[in-house]
Amino acid sequence: MSIAPLTDLSRCAIHTFTTKPLNLAQAVSAYQAAGVTGISVWRQHLEPYGCTEAARILADAGMSVPAYVRGGFFTGSESERGASIDDNKRCLDEAAAIGADQVVLVVGATPGMPLADARNQVTDGIAACLDHARGCGVKLAIEPLHPMYAGDKSCVNSMRQAREIWQELGDPLVGVAVDVYHVWFDQDLAEEIRLAGADQRIFGFHVCDWKCDTNNLLLDRGLMGEGCIDIRGIRQLVESAGFAGWIEVEIFSSTHWAKTQTDWLSEVTAAYLAEV
Amino acid sequence: MSIAPLTDLSRCAIHTFTTKPLNLAQAVSAYQAAGVTGISVWRQHLEPYGCTEAARILADAGMSVPAYVRGGFFTGSESERGASIDDNKRCLDEAAAIGADQVVLVVGATPGMPLADARNQVTDGIAACLDHARGCGVKLAIEPLHPMYAGDKSCVNSMRQAREIWQELGDPLVGVAVDVYHVWFDQDLAEEIRLAGADQRIFGFHVCDWKCDTNNLLLDRGLMGEGCIDIRGIRQLVESAGFAGWIEVEIFSSTHWAKTQTDWLSEVTAAYLAEV
Repeated sequence: MSIAPLTDLSRCAIHTFTTKPLNLAQAVSAYQAAGVTGISVWRQHLEPYGCTEAARILADAGMSVPAYVRGGFFTGSESERGASIDDNKRCLDEAAAIGADQVVLVVGATPGMPLADARNQVTDGIAACLDHARGCGVKLAIEPLHPMYAGDKSCVNSMRQAREIWQELGDPLVGVAVDVYHVWFDQDLAEEIRLAGADQRIFGFHVCDWKCDTNNLLLDRGLMGEGCIDIRGIRQLVESAGFAGWIEVEIFSSTHWAKTQTDWLSEVTAAYLAEV
Repeated sequence: MSIAPLTDLSRCAIHTFTTKPLNLAQAVSAYQAAGVTGISVWRQHLEPYGCTEAARILADAGMSVPAYVRGGFFTGSESERGASIDDNKRCLDEAAAIGADQVVLVVGATPGMPLADARNQVTDGIAACLDHARGCGVKLAIEPLHPMYAGDKSCVNSMRQAREIWQELGDPLVGVAVDVYHVWFDQDLAEEIRLAGADQRIFGFHVCDWKCDTNNLLLDRGLMGEGCIDIRGIRQLVESAGFAGWIEVEIFSSTHWAKTQTDWLSEVTAAYLAEV
């Protein structure tokens, strides 16, 4: 028995990368016009404005910012790891400047490095950012990525691996972003969501869909309803686990980016109400 | 501490799909010329010949046939499932006709069907083929596929899920084919290989590589050494678990198929000795 559909857009947030062709100001206007009041900002979309101007644009429009995307990439050589920690601190500063609740972490992976070793480096990297995150008042959300990104993007490929890190760190500032695209097939999903929720570590919930005929490993995500994920079923899991936050639409799609983005946003909000 | 490289091709088998442009007779000649005496035959490569002629070609060349590829696709409607079982029995007959040790099962998935339900259908489907397999003297090897195939190709995406099926069936004819491409990132790989080996259920070991810049979900596998998988480390795991059978090279690659296939085979055997 599934839960009821959402009846309004009050919890809907959209990642700026979902409308990649729009700059930040255009995205804010378009989301507002579509009735969407949450925006998760990617660094690429902030960069041309700088923090002060971006913060002003977001505040003037009354937008909430669930997430700033993305920090992480903690693995590598000694010097790479040091540079990464510095960059993550800058990322936290930027997140704080625009009032983001959390930084989403794509944790990194280094070809040839055993994934377990990489996860240890990730744990150390996050630990090194914790005081800074606390000072900023910004949370750190580990996003497990699909195993097809284990080669060079993320050594955390399951909710369990994310949990092992936040449990080891034992700091309420570190939790998880649950993206249906990356975890929908996980045999342990229900149990892992329950565990994360019990410790109030579900910081984000991202939606899109997995198309069975996916033709690109990065840029062919589906709009909710275009694929095979039981999105509402996963929403039921996170909500049963206590999550009541923003539902973030995060879709990378060359196909959808080729459309007029206001039309695309209409599709997004309709699918949100119908499928999430 | 890693085990030593292989010093000869005595355990090397090649899947006919690795040299897709060659027909069966051409593949047999080319593998022989390359010093390879094992061949895993795909149905597409057998079909133009029929079983009798294919069996003669293989026997005349003294080729061993570790695997016939592929059966499975057990999920779907009642009528689809019945048709699938019939087809798997034909597949077993063909495997027996060419002296194959095992049929590799890509078990199937049906978009919209919960993966756990699909796995139950797979278990039932394999069960329905067991007597026939016994009569043929052919084993059934469940091949866990990478989660990027969970949408419509395989609801078994981990060694653990394969184990849950062979344990439930409790028949020594049902085991697992371990393909490094599909399992290299699995946190539980060492333990699952140990469990499968302890019950003598590792029927096959397939090698290729995962390219970090993979550009196609199906047809861009890497030659051993082109990617990030610790292939020798996984060979060490399966051999420590008691596996001493054929090492099957299975690479789908538009890039490599575009080459003169005898040149490509030279690359394959060199990489086998250097990387496996």
